[in-house]
Amino acid sequence: MRPLVLDDDRILPADPATRAVARQIYASVRGLPIVSMHGHVDAGVLARDEPFSDPAHLLVVPDHYVTRMLVSQGARLEDLGVPRLDGGPVETDPRAVWRRFCAGWPLFRGTPSRLWLEQELHDVFGVRVAPSPETADDIFDAITDCLARPEFRPRALFDSFGIEVLATTDSPLSSLADHEAIAASSWGGTVVPTFRPDALVHVARTGWQRDVEALAEVSGVDTSTYSGFLDALRQRREHFVRHGALSTDHGHESAGTTPLDPADAGRIYAAALAGRVDESDARAFAGTMLFEMARMSSEDGLVMQVHPGVLRDHDSAVHDLFGPDQGFDIPVGVDFVHGLRPMLEAFGRHPGFRCVVFTIDETTYSRELAPLAGVYPAMRLGVPWWFLDSPLAMRRFREATTETAGFYNGAGFVDDTRAFASIPARHDMARRVDSGFLAGLVTGGLLPLDEALETATDLTVTLPRLAYRRRG
Amino acid sequence: MRPLVLDDDRILPADPATRAVARQIYASVRGLPIVSMHGHVDAGVLARDEPFSDPAHLLVVPDHYVTRMLVSQGARLEDLGVPRLDGGPVETDPRAVWRRFCAGWPLFRGTPSRLWLEQELHDVFGVRVAPSPETADDIFDAITDCLARPEFRPRALFDSFGIEVLATTDSPLSSLADHEAIAASSWGGTVVPTFRPDALVHVARTGWQRDVEALAEVSGVDTSTYSGFLDALRQRREHFVRHGALSTDHGHESAGTTPLDPADAGRIYAAALAGRVDESDARAFAGTMLFEMARMSSEDGLVMQVHPGVLRDHDSAVHDLFGPDQGFDIPVGVDFVHGLRPMLEAFGRHPGFRCVVFTIDETTYSRELAPLAGVYPAMRLGVPWWFLDSPLAMRRFREATTETAGFYNGAGFVDDTRAFASIPARHDMARRVDSGFLAGLVTGGLLPLDEALETATDLTVTLPRLAYRRRG
Amino acid sequence: MRPLVLDDDRILPADPATRAVARQIYASVRGLPIVSMHGHVDAGVLARDEPFSDPAHLLVVPDHYVTRMLVSQGARLEDLGVPRLDGGPVETDPRAVWRRFCAGWPLFRGTPSRLWLEQELHDVFGVRVAPSPETADDIFDAITDCLARPEFRPRALFDSFGIEVLATTDSPLSSLADHEAIAASSWGGTVVPTFRPDALVHVARTGWQRDVEALAEVSGVDTSTYSGFLDALRQRREHFVRHGALSTDHGHESAGTTPLDPADAGRIYAAALAGRVDESDARAFAGTMLFEMARMSSEDGLVMQVHPGVLRDHDSAVHDLFGPDQGFDIPVGVDFVHGLRPMLEAFGRHPGFRCVVFTIDETTYSRELAPLAGVYPAMRLGVPWWFLDSPLAMRRFREATTETAGFYNGAGFVDDTRAFASIPARHDMARRVDSGFLAGLVTGGLLPLDEALETATDLTVTLPRLAYRRRG
Repeated sequence: MRPLVLDDDRILPADPATRAVARQIYASVRGLPIVSMHGHVDAGVLARDEPFSDPAHLLVVPDHYVTRMLVSQGARLEDLGVPRLDGGPVETDPRAVWRRFCAGWPLFRGTPSRLWLEQELHDVFGVRVAPSPETADDIFDAITDCLARPEFRPRALFDSFGIEVLATTDSPLSSLADHEAIAASSWGGTVVPTFRPDALVHVARTGWQRDVEALAEVSGVDTSTYSGFLDALRQRREHFVRHGALSTDHGHESAGTTPLDPADAGRIYAAALAGRVDESDARAFAGTMLFEMARMSSEDGLVMQVHPGVLRDHDSAVHDLFGPDQGFDIPVGVDFVHGLRPMLEAFGRHPGFRCVVFTIDETTYSRELAPLAGVYPAMRLGVPWWFLDSPLAMRRFREATTETAGFYNGAGFVDDTRAFASIPARHDMARRVDSGFLAGLVTGGLLPLDEALETATDLTVTLPRLAYRRRG
Repeated sequence: MRPLVLDDDRILPADPATRAVARQIYASVRGLPIVSMHGHVDAGVLARDEPFSDPAHLLVVPDHYVTRMLVSQGARLEDLGVPRLDGGPVETDPRAVWRRFCAGWPLFRGTPSRLWLEQELHDVFGVRVAPSPETADDIFDAITDCLARPEFRPRALFDSFGIEVLATTDSPLSSLADHEAIAASSWGGTVVPTFRPDALVHVARTGWQRDVEALAEVSGVDTSTYSGFLDALRQRREHFVRHGALSTDHGHESAGTTPLDPADAGRIYAAALAGRVDESDARAFAGTMLFEMARMSSEDGLVMQVHPGVLRDHDSAVHDLFGPDQGFDIPVGVDFVHGLRPMLEAFGRHPGFRCVVFTIDETTYSRELAPLAGVYPAMRLGVPWWFLDSPLAMRRFREATTETAGFYNGAGFVDDTRAFASIPARHDMARRVDSGFLAGLVTGGLLPLDEALETATDLTVTLPRLAYRRRG
Repeated sequence: MRPLVLDDDRILPADPATRAVARQIYASVRGLPIVSMHGHVDAGVLARDEPFSDPAHLLVVPDHYVTRMLVSQGARLEDLGVPRLDGGPVETDPRAVWRRFCAGWPLFRGTPSRLWLEQELHDVFGVRVAPSPETADDIFDAITDCLARPEFRPRALFDSFGIEVLATTDSPLSSLADHEAIAASSWGGTVVPTFRPDALVHVARTGWQRDVEALAEVSGVDTSTYSGFLDALRQRREHFVRHGALSTDHGHESAGTTPLDPADAGRIYAAALAGRVDESDARAFAGTMLFEMARMSSEDGLVMQVHPGVLRDHDSAVHDLFGPDQGFDIPVGVDFVHGLRPMLEAFGRHPGFRCVVFTIDETTYSRELAPLAGVYPAMRLGVPWWFLDSPLAMRRFREATTETAGFYNGAGFVDDTRAFASIPARHDMARRVDSGFLAGLVTGGLLPLDEALETATDLTVTLPRLAYRRRG
């Protein structure tokens, strides 16, 4: 039975002089509030504020970072309690799922999932033994006990985590009733929606016509024409702005932003409504929509987040049986330079426009993203995202982008989690990495300590607030 | 005259605390057996067990890592004793070749070739002076003396190197007589063949028709049709399995695995037999063959090794005069995500299938390979290969892949050498790099020492045995 | 008010043992002469040797590294004194420009611009306070005082910087009168021209016909035919050689070097003269010209510098208003392997040919450039260029290329600056990075100190002299 210990110096540089400086910098930012501008926590969880059900459904089943690793070594999603779309049999006993997870614990060595989980188990749930077949039941019971207590309800955790603001990700079709309920409640937490129209702008998607009808209904705008469609989206953005939204979010496979002639866009739109659109037209339409979203951002001030370069559902059989987000989304190369050019030429120096660009293609850091963010005033660099939200990858991001773009063309740290309880661990990791990087500049004679301390605070709270235009 | 000294701490991290941990980890794996599952040593060398001829033909002439570096600074392959295909004059005096190599020694500063050669000279042959024009003759004489002694014969070196198993690379046309001879001998070394069908699946290659005839002859299966060709390959795989083979090996220019319709494949096959195949059809056929090889692997259990992304013989004049493998093979970008998709969708979750995927395009580590290996149970990451079989590149591999794929979706270390005497040095280098990486996790507070020690052993022997399904 | 202090150990590794070795190596190269073989300083500055006008026009206005960073945070090029092509109003007060620069000083944290500027301010102008709104005027006044003194004139600075040779970048149309004037003067500085024919080989460029006429005039060779055009270029190269030129320079968007059939090239040339050339033909012609320039290099011995992979003027509105070189040049991916193949197959082993290949696409370091330079005798690796001329990027260059290409297939350090006063700072940075990298090899047990010291001198002066065939 191994103990579960958190090293207070974890992730900080090994060199003693650099570590001493890093400690000092980290101490100055460790307790700052969490500005969480890009996440996938369900607002309903905080609206309802009901207890979390059990350890497996809190920490394993919905976290595809965790399930995919177990799958990679032979586990079946069914055995991990992931529901099948066809209603076929899956494991229903959370304890059995938890045991499988604990047995697979060594697989996570060296991964950020391990770091997040360790910190959650240790700091949130008070666990002091490492997961293993021998300890699985005890840990399960300990967390179960916690979850029954009021201080482990969602809102209480939110408060204890020190979250200044949490942005959720929401469909344009959403009434945002959960956000209204939160705002109307006596609870003081700030939870803002994010406008994510992906499903509506990918016109070849199954079910798109149905969603466009729903859009007409919820917006009260006729969507039978392309211009009506744009008006309806504009109406929904206004609805989101009224509910506190600060940003939009766009997950396209390519970074293309070439606008079609409105007549061509209208023609494709009509064909899509009639169910007769091909892949190539659908792609062209999606690029046009990024351009139009940028135009609307320059008008309504919502910050535009762009996340291109992922081939979703690489194994289509898994998608057919379990749906999306099962760990089979794989990054592909992205061409930001040509892709974003139409958008940046049109809006990149527009004072009302702001975009935050993310990638999981590291090759674009020094070649494309830092040079673009280092000259276009509207553009900010998103932080390492998804697989790159990890100590070494974050470090590579700082190393590859800072020399060209500086610190101030970045957006600070933005987590990207569905796993509510992991939010503090993720922000803590980022603060440690940044403290270590800045400490290296100090001991390398490249930055005085006082400037490093100032920069650390900027990275932690000032820059995300500025990037998302949040009045702090 | 510079001494030749091996620093016992070479390659280990510089930070004293991290180095101390790395030493401890390295000490625990230094003496473990060598599992060498992917090499290009000729089985005949071990079957015949004759003395090696001379220092130049052991260490210089056949090693394109070495000759290419001398060529890059103006040496001619002729002057290095590399035989011309046209029988034209080349240097025949091994001492003259050796002198040229020793004069070029400074060119190897900072390269893994230098590290391997230093360790071979020092540990295997007892040399204690660095190569230079002044020392060339003495070193030549010293090695020559060694080679005449029984303990420097191939089998004796094999035993003294601590090799548990050595896999060779073999044509499907091979009778595997050398492997039979070794098995039938009184010597206890384990040497297994590897099935490498590249020459047979690239149908536009000069001489392909002749090889297909030879395939019919050796297999006893009619290869005049596509299905007969597949049957003949299946027969040869069975032959290899009977001779202990654990894996196949595939060096394609692209990673494409899209299967043609059998009728189309048959049509291309027939055209190729008639000598009327174009490059595009040949490429499509090669992709189909990767898919078919995966299917056969899922049936017969041979582990499939895939090494795409090399443009062979960049300077065709060199190829015409000296043949392949002269240092002019240059990596190109690879798209694993789309390329491997058909194969992985079909077999990636098949319990009988296992593939080990290698690259020398580092951009695919974090973007493509780690995410794919981190979810598909059939896939394992091959280690840094070829140019990347070096301390800094190995380190980058661990840094770029571990956070996403963990350690256990890798295949441990696999050398890729024609240079028999360099095998221990290559495995030693990998053990040092891994020890250093793991030590960094320990001093970074990310992994307790006991888990690091366990992981080090797994990387060194457990994972290669598991990846290649070797019963240890 | 923050002091401006230069840490004497800046950029050297943090680990104390490694730093001690790095100091020793750096001390041995710190004072070596500067071999500056690739820069954009105007020869006229040294021919006229007039005082520099003011701090803003010396350090801010012409340096797009600096202006783009201020632009990225909302400054307008007009406010930074950058002249508009339409003669529209821009800031004319250098003090106002200087104040804006000083107010933006924190933006440069972590960038090489900051390091260069700090060293220039400190070492050249004796400034001891960091730029800020409060200190802007005092620093402006201090530099202004310096510039009025004779020891701050261009030639005096050239001498005090320890420049052995400075190569400028010049149009084939240039008479090289400035170089003649320098050579004819009593001043002993060596300033050589570099032949840069880009404007003449991109036949779709506006104004190309006019330049071809000017080429005929200056060369005295009829350029109305393709072969006349080649002859005229050949004549200009001879003119450059007579004026001391050692190299040519080529900044193409792609690395393509496929030669057209002369008849096809002639057809495109004629169409271009008639103003009827399309983009695709223009690209094919540009590739042909790289091939022809290589052929001429193999004849006249000028070293060919190739800098592909930049999309110039990403924001065309900025280009239309301010012209080129305003910070909107963005790198794109490059395929050197296929691109350079025709040139390298034809001339890569030609004893008269030498090319130095640069990139700002880091993905090509280990995958393409190091393997190519590691085998073709004609090819040398250019150092990190442009955005990559920075401590961490230089370090990545050494780490990614040395193991495959060694040190001796590189060209040593080559700066790429328009900012004359930054030359010593840039070379100093490179010497520090290389000293640190070599020190890491020493403490890592991979290279004895005496060899590291020898290598450091080679990187600093021997290799650039050899690469550019300068008789030292």
